[in-house]
Amino acid sequence: MLIIFGTAKLLAELFERMKQPGIVGEILAGVLVGPSLLGWVSPSEFTTTLAELGVMFLLFRVGLEIDAAELIKLGGTATAVGVLGVSVPFLAGWGIFHLWGKPQLESLFVGTALTATSVGITAQVLAAKGLLQRTASRIILGAAVVDDILALLLLGVVSSLAEGHVNSLELVLTSIFAAGFVLLVAHWGRKSMNRVIPQLQNRLRVGEAQFALAMVFLFGMAALSVKAGVAGIIGAFLAGMALSEAMPPRIHDLSHGVTELLVPFFLANIGLHFNGGAFAHQSTFLLALLLVPAAIFSKILGCGLGASRHGRVVATRVGLGMIPRGEFCMVVAQVGLDLKVIPPDTFGIIVFMAVTVTLMTPPLLKIAFKGILPQPEEETEIFRLG
Amino acid sequence: MLIIFGTAKLLAELFERMKQPGIVGEILAGVLVGPSLLGWVSPSEFTTTLAELGVMFLLFRVGLEIDAAELIKLGGTATAVGVLGVSVPFLAGWGIFHLWGKPQLESLFVGTALTATSVGITAQVLAAKGLLQRTASRIILGAAVVDDILALLLLGVVSSLAEGHVNSLELVLTSIFAAGFVLLVAHWGRKSMNRVIPQLQNRLRVGEAQFALAMVFLFGMAALSVKAGVAGIIGAFLAGMALSEAMPPRIHDLSHGVTELLVPFFLANIGLHFNGGAFAHQSTFLLALLLVPAAIFSKILGCGLGASRHGRVVATRVGLGMIPRGEFCMVVAQVGLDLKVIPPDTFGIIVFMAVTVTLMTPPLLKIAFKGILPQPEEETEIFRLG
Repeated sequence: MLIIFGTAKLLAELFERMKQPGIVGEILAGVLVGPSLLGWVSPSEFTTTLAELGVMFLLFRVGLEIDAAELIKLGGTATAVGVLGVSVPFLAGWGIFHLWGKPQLESLFVGTALTATSVGITAQVLAAKGLLQRTASRIILGAAVVDDILALLLLGVVSSLAEGHVNSLELVLTSIFAAGFVLLVAHWGRKSMNRVIPQLQNRLRVGEAQFALAMVFLFGMAALSVKAGVAGIIGAFLAGMALSEAMPPRIHDLSHGVTELLVPFFLANIGLHFNGGAFAHQSTFLLALLLVPAAIFSKILGCGLGASRHGRVVATRVGLGMIPRGEFCMVVAQVGLDLKVIPPDTFGIIVFMAVTVTLMTPPLLKIAFKGILPQPEEETEIFRLG
Repeated sequence: MLIIFGTAKLLAELFERMKQPGIVGEILAGVLVGPSLLGWVSPSEFTTTLAELGVMFLLFRVGLEIDAAELIKLGGTATAVGVLGVSVPFLAGWGIFHLWGKPQLESLFVGTALTATSVGITAQVLAAKGLLQRTASRIILGAAVVDDILALLLLGVVSSLAEGHVNSLELVLTSIFAAGFVLLVAHWGRKSMNRVIPQLQNRLRVGEAQFALAMVFLFGMAALSVKAGVAGIIGAFLAGMALSEAMPPRIHDLSHGVTELLVPFFLANIGLHFNGGAFAHQSTFLLALLLVPAAIFSKILGCGLGASRHGRVVATRVGLGMIPRGEFCMVVAQVGLDLKVIPPDTFGIIVFMAVTVTLMTPPLLKIAFKGILPQPEEETEIFRLG
């Protein structure tokens, strides 16, 4: 723990001094101490658990700062961004591998791996710079929810294809259930929590009852959303949104402490998965180099189109914010490997792509959001006029 | 995680309503969901890690509230309490098993298992009730450090005996090194931190630099103290003491959040280890029933004698506060089992003893500290007069 946390913070400091985003330093810390370079730490169940808890708390905290009503107002745009931001990267990934002459199933898996945004990275950058209230940030968070549902469905489809049987009814039911769950919580979550929490609070005698309640609700929502067919972090985000008014600032601070401790593990864990597999052969390396810009521009294009009615500035920010890939990518690659649809070198390519595009996002976001701090209403203005 | 945290908080609430300490509810939650009853959760590397982090943060937070100078003032008493609080229980445990006709090595291991206090339980009770500034509390914390060093040395001796070779020089060196490390940090830790931290702080640009520094220092001290031959939690306690002045209240709050989240896992994990092994045979059960009062009264007697010059009230409180057994007990039992010195039923007896005496401590402490809140200076008065 000391190694991971210490190195992450050290590199973050170095990067901040070079006027680069600290988050990039924390991911590179994972690459540095990981198996590909120093070999001090290997990804294990322990580091993965801390990382999962880290990103859960991160999205819980982001949720605490988000107004569900505002998010729902932007629901149309978020859905468009989510749908296009899944389809375009899917087609790009599938297309490249298909044209390269790879088997159909492998190309479909690579396409799927390109779909899901790892919203944790963007959320961390936006939260650290106090940009969560911007229109673009809200669109990104809303789109990440849509994106996650679609990507999970897509993974369901391609892995059923690989296993040779597709149950369409089950897929339709899952998607309806997942979407219904999210809408239900987003709509009524806050109102019901605003009623329930104060009542419960007055009745409880245990120490720090509010914090305990918040944690039980957080873990409960994460577990429920996994049951409903959505990722646990989406549940954590919804839990945060539902609790945002019912919880006093002190609880925000307490959960902030947990987040600060665990987020470096989430970031370093991405770096830990980096390996040299993508450099095994020249052709593999070429394919990896081709996939990185495809992953970046397909999201900028797809998501940008989805958000185009909010003006070019917002659209660019949304597109850039949706670039990072993370956990989901690794999951798709792992499922493909287990089903023997993806060979190890393609697995290496996917992980290389995920780490590389994720590393490139914070600097790009920094540029895209530059200059808005002096005129804090500019972006919203465009939105209202456009 | 939901199961453990939720059940722990639920039972804590129930116990608070029955005017019983919530901490007992949280330990019983572990027994309830653990393998011996419902079987929902088994002790795993994951639960153990969370538990270790929990008790580390607990002692870090306790350290933050403790004044090292005050602790050193009570150093003489703390040493006496530590020495007698290790010797008397060791003799009691060894004596009972020896008289029962058990082999010599097994009796020595059982004696060793009875020595180390699990100060986390007492610290949690005292911190929750705001009693950390009492004389008795300070003696307990100081004695726990001495106790820990002695118990680790004793485990070193008995396991070398079991392996058939004792390296006295190494044991002497370890004890000098461990004691030196603790004294050094307790004496100069705070002063040097008061100088170093503000300087570092001004130079760092990373977000939440103070919290990051505190965490790096905490993990670093825990790792160092393990190297020095002391338990990691003692290092965490020393780290907290060294940082107590240099850190602003906000950092206390942030680390408090982590503590609140993780401590239920520490408590429930004790309960998780409970098993029915002690009830296997009638003679095993009798021996277990005999060992529980021996574990309790040997600590009350030994530690009480050590603190006798502070008056009977303080001595009783110190004796009661030193009763809990935990992690160390399980470690001794495990080492003995691995060396084939302890049979499985004796392993069951030791774990049964640890869980039972730990469960009995919070209510006893509640009684011992009752009535002092209206006259907050009573105890210190006795000390000054005595």
